[in-house]
Amino acid sequence: MNFHTRKWVKPEDLNANGTLFGGALLRWIDEEAAIYAILQMGNHRAVTKMMSEINFVSSAMQGDMIEMGLKATRFGRTSVTMRAEVRNMITRQLILTIEKIVFVSLDADGKPVPHGYTDITYDRDRMPTRLPNAES
Amino acid sequence: MNFHTRKWVKPEDLNANGTLFGGALLRWIDEEAAIYAILQMGNHRAVTKMMSEINFVSSAMQGDMIEMGLKATRFGRTSVTMRAEVRNMITRQLILTIEKIVFVSLDADGKPVPHGYTDITYDRDRMPTRLPNAES
Amino acid sequence: MNFHTRKWVKPEDLNANGTLFGGALLRWIDEEAAIYAILQMGNHRAVTKMMSEINFVSSAMQGDMIEMGLKATRFGRTSVTMRAEVRNMITRQLILTIEKIVFVSLDADGKPVPHGYTDITYDRDRMPTRLPNAES
Amino acid sequence: MNFHTRKWVKPEDLNANGTLFGGALLRWIDEEAAIYAILQMGNHRAVTKMMSEINFVSSAMQGDMIEMGLKATRFGRTSVTMRAEVRNMITRQLILTIEKIVFVSLDADGKPVPHGYTDITYDRDRMPTRLPNAES
Amino acid sequence: MNFHTRKWVKPEDLNANGTLFGGALLRWIDEEAAIYAILQMGNHRAVTKMMSEINFVSSAMQGDMIEMGLKATRFGRTSVTMRAEVRNMITRQLILTIEKIVFVSLDADGKPVPHGYTDITYDRDRMPTRLPNAES
Amino acid sequence: MNFHTRKWVKPEDLNANGTLFGGALLRWIDEEAAIYAILQMGNHRAVTKMMSEINFVSSAMQGDMIEMGLKATRFGRTSVTMRAEVRNMITRQLILTIEKIVFVSLDADGKPVPHGYTDITYDRDRMPTRLPNAES
Repeated sequence: MNFHTRKWVKPEDLNANGTLFGGALLRWIDEEAAIYAILQMGNHRAVTKMMSEINFVSSAMQGDMIEMGLKATRFGRTSVTMRAEVRNMITRQLILTIEKIVFVSLDADGKPVPHGYTDITYDRDRMPTRLPNAES
Repeated sequence: MNFHTRKWVKPEDLNANGTLFGGALLRWIDEEAAIYAILQMGNHRAVTKMMSEINFVSSAMQGDMIEMGLKATRFGRTSVTMRAEVRNMITRQLILTIEKIVFVSLDADGKPVPHGYTDITYDRDRMPTRLPNAES
Repeated sequence: MNFHTRKWVKPEDLNANGTLFGGALLRWIDEEAAIYAILQMGNHRAVTKMMSEINFVSSAMQGDMIEMGLKATRFGRTSVTMRAEVRNMITRQLILTIEKIVFVSLDADGKPVPHGYTDITYDRDRMPTRLPNAES
Repeated sequence: MNFHTRKWVKPEDLNANGTLFGGALLRWIDEEAAIYAILQMGNHRAVTKMMSEINFVSSAMQGDMIEMGLKATRFGRTSVTMRAEVRNMITRQLILTIEKIVFVSLDADGKPVPHGYTDITYDRDRMPTRLPNAES
Repeated sequence: MNFHTRKWVKPEDLNANGTLFGGALLRWIDEEAAIYAILQMGNHRAVTKMMSEINFVSSAMQGDMIEMGLKATRFGRTSVTMRAEVRNMITRQLILTIEKIVFVSLDADGKPVPHGYTDITYDRDRMPTRLPNAES
Repeated sequence: MNFHTRKWVKPEDLNANGTLFGGALLRWIDEEAAIYAILQMGNHRAVTKMMSEINFVSSAMQGDMIEMGLKATRFGRTSVTMRAEVRNMITRQLILTIEKIVFVSLDADGKPVPHGYTDITYDRDRMPTRLPNAES
């Protein structure tokens, strides 16, 4: 599992009970998953299709530093499935796990489109070096 | 299912592809679920414990008006399980469904505490009329 | 009066004195009024024209759950006037009242346009089921 | 009237119709009024009590630069009343006017407290140079 | 140096240690500098090119009122250089100083374009009274 | 240089000209630098003291995926100096470089305190596994 994006829990991220707001956490992991899925499928047009089994294992407090990890677990014809973990950077305590996040690759009309890959890349070689709308 | 909170999709809510950002949607439904769970369990100290089977059925666009619905489906000794739907207010098109959102009732030390209820309330009679920290 | 949207007061919503920031509250009620006005006038192009007599009756604290209520009180040829209340969901204590919020219905050029209604709808039957920009 | 705070209208400030969101504007003017009232009454504990007659004279677009103006119009024993204007910095076109914004000076228990002033200050001589909570 | 925009430090502006978040402060001063640069160069298309020597002289706390000051110090053919200060409105204590902020004037293709000015304006006479995209 | 946190540029991150807002970028890099500095100095109480030579090399557009890199370049007795780069994840095009970001280690009274390190750690072994305020 690769851990990239890090967050420092600030007052703006807290719920009314003073711990990390679950909704803030879900917002962060969804953005991280979008970036990961775009790289794996080599397509900027990717949308969240399904999440399953989100466990809020422990909470986080103001001042905690946390990191988000993702790993592709399955490639469908037009989709990629990922497993996600969020953990405390120092204690390695798990904060949240998501068994499956499924993103789908779309064409310009919003229809699913095959991405042509069957295994994980650890590089960014699947992406064209320019955005489609920057090419014309 | 009761639909309460409404949102008008604005530019601040969009992802990089110009449709409603999934993470924004999850942030909204988590806050709505917290409010619903607090009312059902009669306790302000409630945290998200688990979500399962989130389906992103369709997307939403700038200008869409959406509404969030919740219904308690099961009462555990220290928890409540809810089903959630988000839909377009006008077309009634489903945008997101979540089979199970589980919230747990906590005591002042952050330990699960029995809430004493076994059925849904459609009123707010379970809540003390003042916040615990406002009583002293 | 119909109460729909609910908010759970979190640290991000507080002013420098630690109570609910008045500006946050006005932002919430303006969005809620926009949604209500759009439904009453059956037109997505609606803008706030006037507010009058806003009373900040009491304050709210972190952890309070509040709800926003609106009711149409007068239909003009191109406008709708609403009364608004925000209250604590549990104590029913009023937090804010606005005597009159006036929204105007606009055409594609931003000019006021008659909406054709003279009474409140409790359904959403006035809206076309598709957004204008989605029809072409 | 003194114009201080300026804003550059960005995508995050727009409503679903692509013009400046009224709620964003109200949030900005409420913060500006709080600062102005605190200086006039010489007390950090000041809250919005009433607003009256808000006119949304014209709209603003992405890229517009706007400025917020305030002027004290009446001093009560525990309050100050202000008039507010928001305008386009370049065209001087009025965007919003508020006839009366009333702020009240509070003591440590949240009760109205006399502020002792009857006229406008154009300096900051009414404020203690340290925050109350920084003195002990 | 002209001080315009004011901020009231609220919980949403704090870092995890409970003082004003440096990143929030940089966000505010960059927007203020953009507005100042646009007025000096008479061109809405202006981008930050360089900052140099940012000193975080002292910190700010919740409840502090701060103000942002800017002064043009040098005009290049396609750029303007400014000095910036942020200070506590009451104590006049410096919070942040930036020796040089350089903005560049761009044409419609994003290339640097001469702005034609060599000295500071204290008025807004350099701006066309309408936005370029509003003229056609 | 280690690249960790990633961002997907969304409408909420854009300036009024439709490119990535410089202030948003500075907010992101300041949070990333805080996390990096806390780990290097083994102390949660760390504040930005100075930045120098920020170059905005190129701009970023909606849909771009960017990543933030940091490397410690010098250890003082109570401080750490870092170099920062922000780049496009796909094209590797540099977006922003900062020659020096200096963070200072503070004690409980806000005074600089020696951190005891003279070289970079690539692990998190310098941090106590619990927050100071969680120990008592």
